[in-house]
Amino acid sequence: MALLGRARELEADGHDVVHMEIGEPGFPTATPVREAGVRALADGHTGYLPAAGLPALREAIAGHYAVRYGVSVDARRILITPGASGALVVAMAMLTDPGRNVLLPDPGYPCNRHFVELLDAVPRAVRVDAATNYQLTPELADAACDEDTAAMLVGSPGNPTGTLATASELAGLGSLAQQRRIGLVVDEIYHGLDYDGMPAQALVQAPDAIVVNSFSKYFGMTGWRLGWMVVPPDWIPVAEKLIQNLFISASTPAQHAALACFTERSLEIFESRREAFRQRRDFLLPALRDLGFHIPGNPAGAFYLYADITALGDDSADLASGLLEQAGVAVTPGLDFERTAPERHLRFAYTTDTDRLATAVSRIQRYLAAGG
Amino acid sequence: MALLGRARELEADGHDVVHMEIGEPGFPTATPVREAGVRALADGHTGYLPAAGLPALREAIAGHYAVRYGVSVDARRILITPGASGALVVAMAMLTDPGRNVLLPDPGYPCNRHFVELLDAVPRAVRVDAATNYQLTPELADAACDEDTAAMLVGSPGNPTGTLATASELAGLGSLAQQRRIGLVVDEIYHGLDYDGMPAQALVQAPDAIVVNSFSKYFGMTGWRLGWMVVPPDWIPVAEKLIQNLFISASTPAQHAALACFTERSLEIFESRREAFRQRRDFLLPALRDLGFHIPGNPAGAFYLYADITALGDDSADLASGLLEQAGVAVTPGLDFERTAPERHLRFAYTTDTDRLATAVSRIQRYLAAGG
Ligand SMILES: Cc1ncc(COP(=O)(O)O)c(C=O)c1O
Ligand SMILES: Cc1ncc(COP(=O)(O)O)c(C=O)c1O
Repeated sequence: MALLGRARELEADGHDVVHMEIGEPGFPTATPVREAGVRALADGHTGYLPAAGLPALREAIAGHYAVRYGVSVDARRILITPGASGALVVAMAMLTDPGRNVLLPDPGYPCNRHFVELLDAVPRAVRVDAATNYQLTPELADAACDEDTAAMLVGSPGNPTGTLATASELAGLGSLAQQRRIGLVVDEIYHGLDYDGMPAQALVQAPDAIVVNSFSKYFGMTGWRLGWMVVPPDWIPVAEKLIQNLFISASTPAQHAALACFTERSLEIFESRREAFRQRRDFLLPALRDLGFHIPGNPAGAFYLYADITALGDDSADLASGLLEQAGVAVTPGLDFERTAPERHLRFAYTTDTDRLATAVSRIQRYLAAGG
Repeated sequence: MALLGRARELEADGHDVVHMEIGEPGFPTATPVREAGVRALADGHTGYLPAAGLPALREAIAGHYAVRYGVSVDARRILITPGASGALVVAMAMLTDPGRNVLLPDPGYPCNRHFVELLDAVPRAVRVDAATNYQLTPELADAACDEDTAAMLVGSPGNPTGTLATASELAGLGSLAQQRRIGLVVDEIYHGLDYDGMPAQALVQAPDAIVVNSFSKYFGMTGWRLGWMVVPPDWIPVAEKLIQNLFISASTPAQHAALACFTERSLEIFESRREAFRQRRDFLLPALRDLGFHIPGNPAGAFYLYADITALGDDSADLASGLLEQAGVAVTPGLDFERTAPERHLRFAYTTDTDRLATAVSRIQRYLAAGG
C-alpha cells in the first residue's frame, strides 16, 4: 500500500510506472454487466435485499456450478456477501473463537490473518514451498494442527503464488477436517482465472467445506463489492443471521448487475479476458526466469507470479524499492505475504497488458544489468 | 425478519398488507443520485478504491458538516465504509476486546449487540425509558460502567424510539468517556430525518467520539451499502487499516453516485422527503395515542414510533401476529429491540405514505374494537 502510494507520487511527478503490484484486472467491468447495473438503477433497485441475497442470483450461481463443474449445488446453500472479504469474515465468525488457532498457508493472502485476528483467534502460519507447489497438503495441515485448532483456510488458485490445489489435496483436507472436527474454508476467488486445465472444485472433493468466491476477479467486478459463500446445509441459518446482523445485505445494484454475468455475451468476454491473462502468464513466466528470478511450482492461475530473488539480491524490499525508483516498475515485496523468507520474495501481478509487461521486463533487465 | 417473511407470504396469497415493519425509506434513491451512478458505470468506475474512500467524497462530507452544523471537520478524519454497519464493525474492533463490555441502551438497534459479540465482547444492556426520553444519560452510563467497560454506543435519533440525545447529554457522555478512558460511539444514521429542530451534533459536543453515519436513510441509498465514520486524528491509520483488511474498500459506483447527494437538486429532494416524514409522524403519533398506544418521550426523528401496549394487551408478539394475520398490518414486536419489557412494546415504522398509514390506523382500530 505504501508502495502504491509512492508509485502514484512518481506518476504525479511525470514518471512512467508499470504497475505490477495491483491485484485487480486492468479492465473495467464488462459492458453487459455495467448495462445491467444501469437498468437496475433505472428500475429503482436501490433498497435493501434479503440477507441471503437475490434469489435469482443464488440460482444463477448454482447454475454456474452445474455448467462449469458438473456439480449440483442447492441454491439455498449459496449466500451472497459483500465480496469474498465479507464471506471470509462470516466464515471465521462461524468457525473460530478467541484463543483458538486457524491454519493459514504461508505465503498467503495477507487479509486472512486479519479476519482471524478480528475474532481474537490466532493465525497459525504453516510454511508451504515449492515441494508442495505452495499448497497446504493434508500432511502439512495434520502436522500443524493441535487441540486448539478451529479451522484451516486455503486458497486455490492461491495469492501470491497462483498455484492450484489438486483434487486429492482438497479431498485429504476435507477428510482431515472431518476427522479432527475442525472447519475447512476454501477460497476459490481466482477460479475461472486458470490456464492449464480445470482446477479441482472443493464442493466436489470436500462437500463439508465452506467455499468462498467472488464477482471480483473472473467476473471483473472488484469495486462493486460482491461475493458469495457456499455453506453446508446445517449452517445456512447461522450464516444468514451473521450476514443480516453484520452487513444487512450485499449491494443491491451489484446483485442485479451480476445476473448479467451468466449470459453468453458476458461469458465470452470473461473467457477472452482469461485468454489474455493466459498469454501474459506465458510471456512473463519465462521472461522473469530468464532474468534470474526463481519461480518454482506451477503458477497456473490467478494473475500473480511469486519469485525467489536469491540469485539477484538479498533484500526484496530493497529490490522492490530500486525497481520502482530507478526502473519505474512497481512490484510487491514478500513482506506482504509471508513471514518465513519475505526478504527473498517478490510478487509480480500481470494485471496490465503484454506490451506493458514487455516494457517492465526490459526495464528490469537494464536495472539488473546496471548492478541494481 | 420471520414477520417480514410471513407478510410476504400473505401478500403472495392475495392479501393486502400495510408494511409498518420496514426500516428503510419507501422511496427509491433520488433520481440525481441514480443518474450519477449511471455516469459512474459509463465512465468505468468499477475498480477498487483506496480504503479510506474517494477523496472528493470525504471532502464533500466535510463540507456537509460545515454547512449543516457549522462544524469544521478535517476530511482526513472521515473514512468511507460499507454502510454504517461496516463503520460499527470497525469501531467495535478498535475499541473492545474479548471479555470487556460495551454499554448499549435498551431498547436499541438490535445489530449493535452482534457487532459487540462478533469480537467476543459483552453487550451490556442499560435500561433507558421515558424518564430520559429513551436516551442513555451520563448518569445512567456512569452507574453501568465498571473496570471492564470498553465503550458506550448510543444512537441519536434512536432506533426504535426516534428520540434525540440533547447537547448536554452528548457532552456528558464525552466527558465520562474521557474520564473513564473508554470509547464513545455515536450513531447519527438518522440525522437529517429530524422534525423538531436541529439535533445536537456529537462532533461538537464530544470531539473525541467516533461518529458513525450513512447514506442509507436521509440520503436514501440503503441498498448501495455506503456509510462513513469520523474518527479522532490519532485513530485514522488504525481505522483505515481495518477497513483495508476487512472490506478492501466500500462500493466504487456507490461512492461516485453519493457525490451527487450534496448538490442543490438532491438536497431539495431529501428535504421534501424529510417534510413528508414529518407529516407522517404528525399524523401517526396522535392517531396511535388515540387508539390507546402509550408513546412516551418525544419521537422527533428517524421514522419509528415505539409504543407501550399495556393498555391494549399483555403480549406484543401476539398483538403483532394478530394485526398481521387478522388486520393486514405488519409491525415489529419489542422482542427485536429490548430485553427488559419486550412483551409490552411494538415498533411502528412510518416508511409508507400517509394514505397507507391511515388505512393501517383504521384497520388497527377495527381489530382492537373487535376485541383483538
Ligand atoms: C485470495 C483472495 N481472497 C479474497 C480476496 C477479497 O476479494 P473481494 O472481497 O473483492 O471479493 C482477494 C482480493 O484480492 C484475494 O486475493
Ligand atoms: C440505528 C441504525 N444504525 C445502523 C444501521 C445500519 O445501516 P446501514 O448499514 O445501511 O448504513 C441501521 C439500519 O437500519 C440503523 O437503524
